[in-house]
Amino acid sequence: MKELLKHLREYISVSEKEFQQIETYFECFEVKKKQNLNSFKNISNYNFFVVQGCLHMYFINEKGENQSVQFAIENWWITDLLSLHRNKESVFYIQAVENCRILSISKKNQEKLLAEFPKVERYFRIIYQIALGASLYRIKFLYQASKAERYFHFIKHHPEFAQRIPQYLIASFLGLTPEYVSEIRTKAFLKQV
Amino acid sequence: MKELLKHLREYISVSEKEFQQIETYFECFEVKKKQNLNSFKNISNYNFFVVQGCLHMYFINEKGENQSVQFAIENWWITDLLSLHRNKESVFYIQAVENCRILSISKKNQEKLLAEFPKVERYFRIIYQIALGASLYRIKFLYQASKAERYFHFIKHHPEFAQRIPQYLIASFLGLTPEYVSEIRTKAFLKQV
Repeated sequence: MKELLKHLREYISVSEKEFQQIETYFECFEVKKKQNLNSFKNISNYNFFVVQGCLHMYFINEKGENQSVQFAIENWWITDLLSLHRNKESVFYIQAVENCRILSISKKNQEKLLAEFPKVERYFRIIYQIALGASLYRIKFLYQASKAERYFHFIKHHPEFAQRIPQYLIASFLGLTPEYVSEIRTKAFLKQV
Repeated sequence: MKELLKHLREYISVSEKEFQQIETYFECFEVKKKQNLNSFKNISNYNFFVVQGCLHMYFINEKGENQSVQFAIENWWITDLLSLHRNKESVFYIQAVENCRILSISKKNQEKLLAEFPKVERYFRIIYQIALGASLYRIKFLYQASKAERYFHFIKHHPEFAQRIPQYLIASFLGLTPEYVSEIRTKAFLKQV
């Protein structure tokens, strides 16, 4: 669990001794590519931290297609936070894009952890603050950018995702069809030749 | 500042005596309708809590139009959190939709407040967690709903905003033109007659 300790230490000070206590609240497990971590209409009872691999969160749209709304690679947290907070059924699925090593913490254990180590509140406050700030930039981007700009901006500014995530999932995440992404990639390639 | 105390107490326990200390970190001020609280390309140094009134956050799109991305009414916080966190220029403006009473806290004072009252970390962690969870539902909604659905869903589920915010701002917030909103409202009205 040294990855989690390293990530905590980017925001708060944690001694080795404290971490020996902190890690008891987590479970470590592996998921295979395409395996689901939660199911639609289940209440999210866990928060997931990606040690290795890549997850995505999606819903099934009216056409019956998976529509991605979030990716999570190493050191990212992912869950349906509203479902977790309000004990309501989730509208999302979480699935492994690659084989993954994950740390999970139950809602109950997270409450106990925060009661024992209030400074971990600071860690979560800061990472949620950054993610919330970024979400408004994402909304701005969705309103502002053309469909082609969405794609080329994403692969330029998020190479860590673009290099490992299949094109059809990136297309879905950006609200585009795989056919459209294929078309603009071909056009861009032909311009370069 | 009793509104802030009441809101804090929804998430954490705060005594009157503690609040006498907490409130010293805030400044209370009024802004008139249409007045701006920050300026594009300024670094956001303040977090704002709405005591009374309504603010919105917007950027100026390529057509030179204001594009709203967030509203904040009573008990809501609003700022460009990424600009605040990273000390980078903001890409957003914050403007009063109505005459407002606002509490502001500077980044420096917020750090001091959190150092003196670590439990306020918990308050911010929870409200950011809820807002971040809600932001994914918003992305889902933007991908899933038709333009007309966006509008009618918003006015049905957020009457507290719909009743007081001008139509052209609601249209902007939903990524629609005022003309389009006017058209679908007329159609819906004619159906009822």
